[in-house]
Amino acid sequence: MAHSRQRRLFLGMAMLAFLAIGPARAAQSAPERAALDLMPVPESVNLRDGRFRVDDSLSVGGQAAPGDRAFGAAARFMSRVAARTGIFLKQDFLAARGSAADGAVRYEFTRPGKLEPLEDESYSLIVNPGKVVLSAPTDIGVLRGFETLLQLLSSDQAGYYIPCVEIIDRPRFTWRGLLIDSGRHFQPVEAIKRNLDGMAALKMNVLHWHLTEDQGFRVESKVFPRLHELGSDGLYYTQAQIREIIEYAADRGIRVMPEFDVPGHSTSWFVAYPEFASAPGPYAIERRFGVAEPAFNPADERVYPFFDKFFGEMAALFPDPYLHIGGDEVEGRHWDANPAIQAFKKKRGLADNHALQAYFNTRLLKILTRHGKKMVGWDEIFQPGLPTDIVIQSWRGTEALVESARKGYQGILSNGYYIDLCQPAETHYLNDPIPSGSTLDEAQRKLVLGGEATMWSELVTPETIDSRIWPRTAAIAERLWSRPSVRDVGDMYRRLAVVSLRLEELGLTHLKNQGMMLRRLAAGPDIGPLEVLAQAVEPLKNYQRHSQGVTYTSLSPLTRFVDACAPESMAARDFRIKVESFISSGDRESAQELRKTLTAWKNNHTLLLPLIARSPALKEIEPLSLTLAEAAETGLTALAHIEKGEKPSPDWAEGGRGKLNEAAKPMAHAELAVVRAVGRLLEACAGPAGRGPVRDIM
Amino acid sequence: MAHSRQRRLFLGMAMLAFLAIGPARAAQSAPERAALDLMPVPESVNLRDGRFRVDDSLSVGGQAAPGDRAFGAAARFMSRVAARTGIFLKQDFLAARGSAADGAVRYEFTRPGKLEPLEDESYSLIVNPGKVVLSAPTDIGVLRGFETLLQLLSSDQAGYYIPCVEIIDRPRFTWRGLLIDSGRHFQPVEAIKRNLDGMAALKMNVLHWHLTEDQGFRVESKVFPRLHELGSDGLYYTQAQIREIIEYAADRGIRVMPEFDVPGHSTSWFVAYPEFASAPGPYAIERRFGVAEPAFNPADERVYPFFDKFFGEMAALFPDPYLHIGGDEVEGRHWDANPAIQAFKKKRGLADNHALQAYFNTRLLKILTRHGKKMVGWDEIFQPGLPTDIVIQSWRGTEALVESARKGYQGILSNGYYIDLCQPAETHYLNDPIPSGSTLDEAQRKLVLGGEATMWSELVTPETIDSRIWPRTAAIAERLWSRPSVRDVGDMYRRLAVVSLRLEELGLTHLKNQGMMLRRLAAGPDIGPLEVLAQAVEPLKNYQRHSQGVTYTSLSPLTRFVDACAPESMAARDFRIKVESFISSGDRESAQELRKTLTAWKNNHTLLLPLIARSPALKEIEPLSLTLAEAAETGLTALAHIEKGEKPSPDWAEGGRGKLNEAAKPMAHAELAVVRAVGRLLEACAGPAGRGPVRDIM
Repeated sequence: MAHSRQRRLFLGMAMLAFLAIGPARAAQSAPERAALDLMPVPESVNLRDGRFRVDDSLSVGGQAAPGDRAFGAAARFMSRVAARTGIFLKQDFLAARGSAADGAVRYEFTRPGKLEPLEDESYSLIVNPGKVVLSAPTDIGVLRGFETLLQLLSSDQAGYYIPCVEIIDRPRFTWRGLLIDSGRHFQPVEAIKRNLDGMAALKMNVLHWHLTEDQGFRVESKVFPRLHELGSDGLYYTQAQIREIIEYAADRGIRVMPEFDVPGHSTSWFVAYPEFASAPGPYAIERRFGVAEPAFNPADERVYPFFDKFFGEMAALFPDPYLHIGGDEVEGRHWDANPAIQAFKKKRGLADNHALQAYFNTRLLKILTRHGKKMVGWDEIFQPGLPTDIVIQSWRGTEALVESARKGYQGILSNGYYIDLCQPAETHYLNDPIPSGSTLDEAQRKLVLGGEATMWSELVTPETIDSRIWPRTAAIAERLWSRPSVRDVGDMYRRLAVVSLRLEELGLTHLKNQGMMLRRLAAGPDIGPLEVLAQAVEPLKNYQRHSQGVTYTSLSPLTRFVDACAPESMAARDFRIKVESFISSGDRESAQELRKTLTAWKNNHTLLLPLIARSPALKEIEPLSLTLAEAAETGLTALAHIEKGEKPSPDWAEGGRGKLNEAAKPMAHAELAVVRAVGRLLEACAGPAGRGPVRDIM
Repeated sequence: MAHSRQRRLFLGMAMLAFLAIGPARAAQSAPERAALDLMPVPESVNLRDGRFRVDDSLSVGGQAAPGDRAFGAAARFMSRVAARTGIFLKQDFLAARGSAADGAVRYEFTRPGKLEPLEDESYSLIVNPGKVVLSAPTDIGVLRGFETLLQLLSSDQAGYYIPCVEIIDRPRFTWRGLLIDSGRHFQPVEAIKRNLDGMAALKMNVLHWHLTEDQGFRVESKVFPRLHELGSDGLYYTQAQIREIIEYAADRGIRVMPEFDVPGHSTSWFVAYPEFASAPGPYAIERRFGVAEPAFNPADERVYPFFDKFFGEMAALFPDPYLHIGGDEVEGRHWDANPAIQAFKKKRGLADNHALQAYFNTRLLKILTRHGKKMVGWDEIFQPGLPTDIVIQSWRGTEALVESARKGYQGILSNGYYIDLCQPAETHYLNDPIPSGSTLDEAQRKLVLGGEATMWSELVTPETIDSRIWPRTAAIAERLWSRPSVRDVGDMYRRLAVVSLRLEELGLTHLKNQGMMLRRLAAGPDIGPLEVLAQAVEPLKNYQRHSQGVTYTSLSPLTRFVDACAPESMAARDFRIKVESFISSGDRESAQELRKTLTAWKNNHTLLLPLIARSPALKEIEPLSLTLAEAAETGLTALAHIEKGEKPSPDWAEGGRGKLNEAAKPMAHAELAVVRAVGRLLEACAGPAGRGPVRDIM
């Protein structure tokens, strides 16, 4: 099993993270905007004196009628204000009859927006002490404005209010997507819905729904019912559910673009139809992950009428103008081994497998065009002669995006937005689809439509998917909506913490499922020491979890300690910042706080041991916890040395370095997220002479 | 707005709780069964030496094929074992092809069970060190047995295991239901589904789905689409969703019985069809709660063809043999005020409104019979001459149940199982459908089919419904499944705590939503002091929340502090038990623990104040928190007096009593659940002379 897409990507990401360190530190600041908790940061914010008080007389009104998109958004706005404030609003904001044409909050728009790229999503918001007016060319703009208004809701001693402000806002990119992979792990309807709510809160507008994979065919086909019957273990979306989700998304101004990944990543199709594969069957649903060998047979004329019928059915089911055909990571071995395919290539003058896939795509393109859909595919589908209304999605990198833009093709960026890799939000945040040094001209820049966060689901279940998506995806949403100059990492994290809490009101489980998972592991309610450890730990990054001595399959439990840990620990980040602050300033207050944190980590191991003794599922974290305690002890000693202005003995420093190097290694499929910062303390007290080994873990 | 059903019920419950105190304390114990955490307690448990080890070689097999109920149950069993233990099981337990006919765990059954009352749900379970055999006459029995097996899963130093045991089990009552009221507050599909999983885990077998109310018409009608279009604010179940839920329930051995409440509780129907009401329209969806006046007009011949078509449609949609027509709380005023109805009564010789309703029911009965359904209704539908295959659901009390049984009618009990009233689990647990002193003969007893917990949803949203249902409903489930002699309240609570945690693995939010709600209230992540307060607080019982100076409607926020508090605080219960233990034994260890708890409560107020200052939504809890601190201080002083063997001054005691009487009053729609126990400490130190006032709050 190879992870080629992932492996290549990893290198790209690592470089990116490395390069990003510079600009991040030197980011611009926008003090006025930063005073608010808005995310994504609007184009223009003009804060004024005065407050619009929110009390039980709050009312909303506009020209929309029940059933309209804007009416629903207004009702949800009122409901969320009530939920957050506990105020018993007097207005019957759901009233189907006599709905208000005006209110203390008035919304107005010129026309219903269309769910397609380049649609106008701009809005303006004017908050005066007695009136809020939200205006937009389209009702989609109204939706975006209501989300801003909810982010403006604040409180003071007198109660709740919205600050007086004038906001003019519009997105930088028109394509701001989230890919959810329902193939590798099925995600039930409610998981999709609550994430659509999260997307809407961050003004994202494309759900890229990865519906077929080696591990499962997840959509009901009425034309070829054996596809989902045999290819899904019963875990698929009915067409009624698909329509329900499309409608739910449309109500939130979100397009739903389906992906049916062909000719590779297609094992689950062949359980029902082995005759369309390049190698003889029978086939079973793939449980392992990676790049599998099965692929459609482009040389077999029967596959095209099949696709014609299938894509015809799906084109009618999904209203989006775009349909994604995948096209990535065709392994090629089954093509090479099939004499009929080899003969076909020769006959057609197809030089290699890339040419063969280009032939296949050209046939598919005709089919999609006949059914009124524009084609989207991963980098690999790019080839000369394609019509320019297709969209290339780049997992390989910005260079690929630049290359296709130069040739006149539209593109979206996903490289650098692989949220399944458990990278920090900062990494994604600083990854710009059009970096500041870009050599693309104005016309070419317009071809870069935006980007998509990709929630590949090898290691993600309905229990953990929210914590893998949120809050980090909010940073990507801001990158795609806000001006390129909005790059203050510290301010992003400040607002991200606020956003993360507010996302909970939408039913998202990214915070609350941690306690549930830890209680299950402890088989008891008292999880304090587990929570302390979890704050210092992050899951292994990139694809490291796949090389820890066990093979993950689609049936493996993802309920271990590592799965309960957030991809990015905010506590670890705070610790790192405090360490740097202490090292640079040496202030006593920072020292005091660091000592408190380090002492808690040091003492935690003893508190955790009884829990581990009672639960075999926790056994694997004993070394992790012990190592944290030891690292904390090293940190405490280093701290004391620095405070006293004493240099530690070379032996102690050498020993500490060795321990920290060990502590940085993977344990229980996770890693200690605080070792690097402890190493900084050690380095700070031991001085330059001792730098060598510690550098290894930095 | 009256609350007649509720008001009468309240009196019944209060009496019941009072009477129950005796037997509870003197309950039987079954030490062997109690050593396990099984709930409901099986009929017979024979624990043996030896352990069946659970490791990655665990496998399951039986005669069922993919798509069968038992196959699904076996797959869920494996998946839950993996999730709880973190073990990477080797068996591909989902495999659609070549599914195992045998395994380390083998299940066998004779026939598929029917989803109807009196079906055989028995099973036997034999666990040997090398083999588990689960046998049942029906596949429904197999489902019940898998749940027992999951409750048996234990751990020791060597890992996970199932203790060797022989279990023979069958339910005492055939009707073990949960009513979910989707009318007053709509509950989305996933809320219903996760609660179905909770029901299955507790071996419950009837979802009584209350689908229409004054506040909403929640089911799609294709025959009369205006019903849901105008009567639901868009919050209704599509027929596809209804079928999805019925199938989901059937997979878990649960019947779905719909209720369409007529002729009262029907305002939402009249938004579309005012012509069927007893008073002229127009009508709007009711937002307030209570017994509303609108009712169908039984004198209008047009209503019967309407019901014939409507119930015909619903009879086809819901496969259950029973259909519930409600029939409760017809207010009568609109009937009295309508001259045509008065004339009709005279002409037909119908003496009063009860007779008029009986006439209406008789017409409905014919309609239901024509569509192949048996009728179920609340107490009020009872009248002479009904066929004996109907079922009476008693909200009035066991007497009503006895009365109908004597007359040959089947009945189910809901009085005493009103879980919306926030009563302790103990109260429901000791409420037996056939109390030990029952004078019913054997044949009459058989007519008592069982009971139903009722989750009326005036004050319940999708966010809070789980915490209002669980874990207390597990005590009702045990009452309806286990032998009547299983009445050890302490042991019930011990097992309830285990069950509560395990229910989380099914996605139930009863525990994890508290943190989410408190974070929203605090508008921040640090909620420690709020959690401490929440442990000492319970929502007001019975219908008291409706008389706190605000009018709850179906649009009111249920996001306040009171909504985050569990209906029954286990911490408060533990405190009460420790107080009693200390008073009776005077041991120092109990004193130490009480002091620790009381000191935490006393100090909590200072910690909470900054949070309150930052959040207007928390303002209302300041008196609650202050009062807890003061009560704790009183408790600490009393404790110190008792330990020293000193009597406090009469003035202090008098002051303390006054304070505690104040502390027992409602605040922020909630009450302190620990005041009574503090009063016991005060009484214990102040002695008999001071008993008077404190008695008031006991």
